[in-house]
Amino acid sequence: MNWLIVDEIIKKALLEDMPFGDVTTELLIDNDKISSVDLVQKEDGVVCGTEVFKRVFDKNGRSVEVYFKVEDGEFVKAGTVIGRVEGKSSELLSGERTALNLLQRMSGIATLTRLFCDKLSGTETKLLNTRKTTPGLRLLEKYATKVGGAVNHRYCLSDGILIKDNHIKAVGSIEKAVRKARRNMPFIRMIEVETETLDDVGEALNYGADIIMLDNMDVKTIKKALKIIDKKALTEVSGNVTLSNIRDIAETGVDYISTGYITHSFTSLDISMKNFKYIDDK
Amino acid sequence: MNWLIVDEIIKKALLEDMPFGDVTTELLIDNDKISSVDLVQKEDGVVCGTEVFKRVFDKNGRSVEVYFKVEDGEFVKAGTVIGRVEGKSSELLSGERTALNLLQRMSGIATLTRLFCDKLSGTETKLLNTRKTTPGLRLLEKYATKVGGAVNHRYCLSDGILIKDNHIKAVGSIEKAVRKARRNMPFIRMIEVETETLDDVGEALNYGADIIMLDNMDVKTIKKALKIIDKKALTEVSGNVTLSNIRDIAETGVDYISTGYITHSFTSLDISMKNFKYIDDK
Amino acid sequence: MNWLIVDEIIKKALLEDMPFGDVTTELLIDNDKISSVDLVQKEDGVVCGTEVFKRVFDKNGRSVEVYFKVEDGEFVKAGTVIGRVEGKSSELLSGERTALNLLQRMSGIATLTRLFCDKLSGTETKLLNTRKTTPGLRLLEKYATKVGGAVNHRYCLSDGILIKDNHIKAVGSIEKAVRKARRNMPFIRMIEVETETLDDVGEALNYGADIIMLDNMDVKTIKKALKIIDKKALTEVSGNVTLSNIRDIAETGVDYISTGYITHSFTSLDISMKNFKYIDDK
Amino acid sequence: MNWLIVDEIIKKALLEDMPFGDVTTELLIDNDKISSVDLVQKEDGVVCGTEVFKRVFDKNGRSVEVYFKVEDGEFVKAGTVIGRVEGKSSELLSGERTALNLLQRMSGIATLTRLFCDKLSGTETKLLNTRKTTPGLRLLEKYATKVGGAVNHRYCLSDGILIKDNHIKAVGSIEKAVRKARRNMPFIRMIEVETETLDDVGEALNYGADIIMLDNMDVKTIKKALKIIDKKALTEVSGNVTLSNIRDIAETGVDYISTGYITHSFTSLDISMKNFKYIDDK
Amino acid sequence: MNWLIVDEIIKKALLEDMPFGDVTTELLIDNDKISSVDLVQKEDGVVCGTEVFKRVFDKNGRSVEVYFKVEDGEFVKAGTVIGRVEGKSSELLSGERTALNLLQRMSGIATLTRLFCDKLSGTETKLLNTRKTTPGLRLLEKYATKVGGAVNHRYCLSDGILIKDNHIKAVGSIEKAVRKARRNMPFIRMIEVETETLDDVGEALNYGADIIMLDNMDVKTIKKALKIIDKKALTEVSGNVTLSNIRDIAETGVDYISTGYITHSFTSLDISMKNFKYIDDK
Amino acid sequence: MNWLIVDEIIKKALLEDMPFGDVTTELLIDNDKISSVDLVQKEDGVVCGTEVFKRVFDKNGRSVEVYFKVEDGEFVKAGTVIGRVEGKSSELLSGERTALNLLQRMSGIATLTRLFCDKLSGTETKLLNTRKTTPGLRLLEKYATKVGGAVNHRYCLSDGILIKDNHIKAVGSIEKAVRKARRNMPFIRMIEVETETLDDVGEALNYGADIIMLDNMDVKTIKKALKIIDKKALTEVSGNVTLSNIRDIAETGVDYISTGYITHSFTSLDISMKNFKYIDDK
Repeated sequence: MNWLIVDEIIKKALLEDMPFGDVTTELLIDNDKISSVDLVQKEDGVVCGTEVFKRVFDKNGRSVEVYFKVEDGEFVKAGTVIGRVEGKSSELLSGERTALNLLQRMSGIATLTRLFCDKLSGTETKLLNTRKTTPGLRLLEKYATKVGGAVNHRYCLSDGILIKDNHIKAVGSIEKAVRKARRNMPFIRMIEVETETLDDVGEALNYGADIIMLDNMDVKTIKKALKIIDKKALTEVSGNVTLSNIRDIAETGVDYISTGYITHSFTSLDISMKNFKYIDDK
Repeated sequence: MNWLIVDEIIKKALLEDMPFGDVTTELLIDNDKISSVDLVQKEDGVVCGTEVFKRVFDKNGRSVEVYFKVEDGEFVKAGTVIGRVEGKSSELLSGERTALNLLQRMSGIATLTRLFCDKLSGTETKLLNTRKTTPGLRLLEKYATKVGGAVNHRYCLSDGILIKDNHIKAVGSIEKAVRKARRNMPFIRMIEVETETLDDVGEALNYGADIIMLDNMDVKTIKKALKIIDKKALTEVSGNVTLSNIRDIAETGVDYISTGYITHSFTSLDISMKNFKYIDDK
Repeated sequence: MNWLIVDEIIKKALLEDMPFGDVTTELLIDNDKISSVDLVQKEDGVVCGTEVFKRVFDKNGRSVEVYFKVEDGEFVKAGTVIGRVEGKSSELLSGERTALNLLQRMSGIATLTRLFCDKLSGTETKLLNTRKTTPGLRLLEKYATKVGGAVNHRYCLSDGILIKDNHIKAVGSIEKAVRKARRNMPFIRMIEVETETLDDVGEALNYGADIIMLDNMDVKTIKKALKIIDKKALTEVSGNVTLSNIRDIAETGVDYISTGYITHSFTSLDISMKNFKYIDDK
Repeated sequence: MNWLIVDEIIKKALLEDMPFGDVTTELLIDNDKISSVDLVQKEDGVVCGTEVFKRVFDKNGRSVEVYFKVEDGEFVKAGTVIGRVEGKSSELLSGERTALNLLQRMSGIATLTRLFCDKLSGTETKLLNTRKTTPGLRLLEKYATKVGGAVNHRYCLSDGILIKDNHIKAVGSIEKAVRKARRNMPFIRMIEVETETLDDVGEALNYGADIIMLDNMDVKTIKKALKIIDKKALTEVSGNVTLSNIRDIAETGVDYISTGYITHSFTSLDISMKNFKYIDDK
Repeated sequence: MNWLIVDEIIKKALLEDMPFGDVTTELLIDNDKISSVDLVQKEDGVVCGTEVFKRVFDKNGRSVEVYFKVEDGEFVKAGTVIGRVEGKSSELLSGERTALNLLQRMSGIATLTRLFCDKLSGTETKLLNTRKTTPGLRLLEKYATKVGGAVNHRYCLSDGILIKDNHIKAVGSIEKAVRKARRNMPFIRMIEVETETLDDVGEALNYGADIIMLDNMDVKTIKKALKIIDKKALTEVSGNVTLSNIRDIAETGVDYISTGYITHSFTSLDISMKNFKYIDDK
Repeated sequence: MNWLIVDEIIKKALLEDMPFGDVTTELLIDNDKISSVDLVQKEDGVVCGTEVFKRVFDKNGRSVEVYFKVEDGEFVKAGTVIGRVEGKSSELLSGERTALNLLQRMSGIATLTRLFCDKLSGTETKLLNTRKTTPGLRLLEKYATKVGGAVNHRYCLSDGILIKDNHIKAVGSIEKAVRKARRNMPFIRMIEVETETLDDVGEALNYGADIIMLDNMDVKTIKKALKIIDKKALTEVSGNVTLSNIRDIAETGVDYISTGYITHSFTSLDISMKNFKYIDDK
């Protein structure tokens, strides 16, 4: 994880939530004693974002320590106390929402991703994340999908060549696009081509695509495509992947299945801070 | 909307997706002709974020114009072409994902919020958003809930006094907390107190809370609480609000119902850019 | 205080004063020994900004410690040594002006505010600050007025509804404006209306203003206005408030008196660093 | 003026005043018609900051035009309409305070500086500004003193060698300090030395100071110092300069008199936006 | 090119050169008339950075237009007027150095890269750039090498897997490193392994490296390595590549030769602005 | 050195090299043990940037310590181990390139500057740096030239008056330009005038230039110019200064010789990190 970026995200988030302070805490907490709260997970799910959670409190002052009893990637049952947060009451209370907003989202993504990955168990197929992430939070969301079991697709537009339908229309044909890309591209890259028909698949294969994306095809067509490709390129299925159909798709033997669902349509995992109490600090 | 902030969000998002350019587009699009694509909504839902969508392309160069056929807040059926995007192919293709990521999320929030608000129709009760928003995107998400029919609760920790369970524990009692807050607070603020029992409700009312939040109470208890309060304070129900129980809660006559669900657990609305074609521009 | 924002202010200030270093110190101080200076207040006044002063030196290196003998809010006589600054000579000398510029301004505001507040002693009326603060330094200046005894009005345009003369003209009448605002506003806000005549006062009261600002009225008119309002709304007097007339205004029984004077027309308190000497540090 | 920096100042100021929008304007102004207001100067004084004022509205949207009838540096009588502001009501109303806060401060500084400079008329002595400016606004405040008639001293610690009392103590003596500075300094700089006694003056002169600052000396001592210096170095008087004594100081024939008073203790000039009305824009 | 990043670079550069304005221009240019200068290339070389040069003046005001007679990549003889710059004298003079500093460096890199690439003509070998670029300017420098004829290696640590000597030592062996990388890596990446001996080459090939870097080998060893690899992996020669030996290396048939020399040891191309004159602008 | 600025440069550089992490290190280094590497200088040269090098690792985590055996300014022979870097393997490996890129460039500049300065030994003439530095890195590059033995010319456009050919054309004549500048300039500045002919020299001297730059003159003309000036102004030779002619120029007795060559055309010094090994850390 690139912590320089994470720290920027956290700083922005704290400023967004406190552009001019925490009015309630400033009115109520004048004798700033050390207190502690428990961090309670209220739903079954995969914890993710523990280090990020800690760093929110680092940025929000210097007094708060967080003690986690779990690690990123652990599956935890509802009702479990997963950690304890301890420090000056004012820092603890004003940082709570920002820290939870991040932890809940990351855990929500990891939990949903785990569900998808569990469907793939026993197959060779791997789950891929996408660029359909929340603007500004991609680093954290890609990380959460990895914690949940997914593998990274390209991170962004800068690091992977993916020739999509609109690119193909812009250039004229799959053939022209692949050739043009091949000519000047960095040698460390592979060329992936999005295909919508079996003809596309054939053309992409012929002109040397390294990876062929089978977009929005049904299982039957996927099978035919894989037969055409015959392991001569890596394969990725994309489009309309759900918890109900992912197993069937995987059993075709495709190398990768990608879904934006795990980052654009997850729900936050319910985690909260409970049992506030003061600590005697001599 | 504060566009200075929106523009910062967009700039960050574009840099996140293109820290060193769009490698595919740079390889393929050399003769940068004007093209157009249709913006197609593929699910029923409430459109939200049209102006934000436009501004993504403004930041990503200067050539792209977006023509929307709908306005923020319109409900649109699946399959509708809601707009057209026109400009240099390279700017259009490289800005697509960032623009869609924002539009889809904002529309997802507006759509889900509308579902909740529809349940309230015919009652006097209003839906409130919360601070459980995506870090960095609060301005856009609060806006999307408003487009969906919700009313703003406080924006952040800086602009509203909300005395929660942990604050009460820190100070000692509801009485002490309300008195302490009243003493130095800006006169433009109201004091809201979170209550968990009918005793809490009585105490909050006694010591002059302007707004009383009934946290995690069942409908029966809510009714008793409202009887105690007897319109002497504004009332808000919070906690475990769902599409199934919100109508029953509203029929108690409570003034407001708040839910974080609309921002922490929405799913993106499926919208995509289709039908790429070149335009003759003399 | 939101220290994330204060630290940004300090960093900007240090960069403004040293865009490419401190040329004098760099030429003269090569053997960077530990030294100390006294912080001497040269005018009677209320000290304010001690923690901000310290943080300037934290940002300007890591060696300098500041030991204050006073706290924010204390009234100090001219000639008093209020603190000692100790650390590497180069950091101490290059941070001096920036640290003093902040401390002197904040103390100047606190001192002037105290003068105004002293005039109110024995009355129920409270002094309010305004948004007429120095661009970029509002957080510090609002804080300084609080240290001086004032109460915060709204912080900014985002957190308070204040319907002013130009808004009323834009909407058409006080009635229309109040109704329009009431319809969609966050329930945590109050509506304040600026009034210039007794008719305005009546209209604002009739349509449910929570706070009525009596703008630029003489004491006689203020009294009439308060009679009309009859405690049914909070009241604020604003405009042409001076040290000479504030007591008379307060004695009308108005709830609040606001003045921009304390932030737009204060003078800095004279504080300086004296008695530089080297310290033996083994 | 470096507009890149000014634009940053303005952006910060607008974000400070609207971290999440202008709640009043957003509630009231929905039909965003073009309106105009007059800019009225309510006190006698020197206008300064007209271009800065304009740029506030440029940053706050694109619709507002400002038509000034005066230029920076003009002395204007109370009651004069100095300009007209015209544009979308929402942008006009939300930018008003930030624009005025800057214009009023800059005009306040220019006005006070003019008072000081007028006292020097007929002498050869020039008024200098100092680094005692508001953190973050130095560029604007130094500019305002120039508009008022002052001459720039060094801008910051980076661009001028000024050996002050604490530097001298750190190095050991004026002699050592001047020699040390001379050895490695950029050839484009002059060396200024702060002196407190006539002995200091002699030593500074002997070892080749280009500029000698006479700090906190009375008129009699200044005269003696000038006799010693005998035009072999430039001379600056500093410390306790007031409107009452500046003329006497100037008549000693000193080259420059510097005062922090014009930037640390000015009062804002009263300017406001009046006569809001809608404009028919076809 | 990602212009959002370029604009940030330019803004930083202008602020670096004018933290508080252009003192000479401000003193001399008061009647800000339109002037023009010629842009003269004073050495033979490849022009690069024309669009960047233009954008410097866009950021430094709005009046200056630049008319280039050449395009990026053109080889130009010493003495050629390659463009004309026209606009307000103050903006033109204050932006000159920053604009030239960028243009000269980019052209220097393009020119040096062209020299290396010319040596490869007639072979299949391509020249690669590296990460040995000037901190902060990588986007511009990588671009300049492309204009000179090179191909991009990875852009940064984020987008390419390159297992270097220190990584191998950290993991234990080439075998372990390649296997470990293969297990979790994004499918769009290739694995490159740095090898120093023929044994390394064999091991890298055996365990499936996609690209093998032959580090610091002499031509004879390179030939043996290529025989071992036998086209089963892509090949890159790196280390001690000079204009004298690059042809011999290329003739071994290696796919790529990389050199940091073109970005860490180029010299700026001499280009200057000459023939300032005023233009009649009615 | 202004470390606030250096830290910004380093942060930018690390983000440039790791916009989304170090993919190789993240794949390979999971058991993050403490390791060490030697820092080896592979070419003769002057070390420069040791403190900057350290700070790169401070910003890239907190575990890495750097132990230098040399100080900025020392001349070191090829093959010398100049330091040791010790810390978590992941931080050490991911920070390596950025740290070296800065150290190599700064050492390259110091080394080249030393070569020029050595040519001046025994003369009174000093070497000056210029503004022909890499955009964004001026602070570091000016520092490196000082370490190499040069003296600072002005830092930027803000801190020195240098009337160049284009300014003179804009104003009309040297006479007019000097007079105009003298009128309003800060008293701490000197006026330098660029001259191209002996007539120019005479005119500059006549109208009181403090420093006269002899631009692009041959040694014979320089001698005549110095005779005309006769020590009544400081003198600087500029233009086409090389290692071959600088001695001849210096022997004319000119005060300063400036050259952009040392910053626009240096080559990086070859320094690398070798001998990676794990350390037992109990």
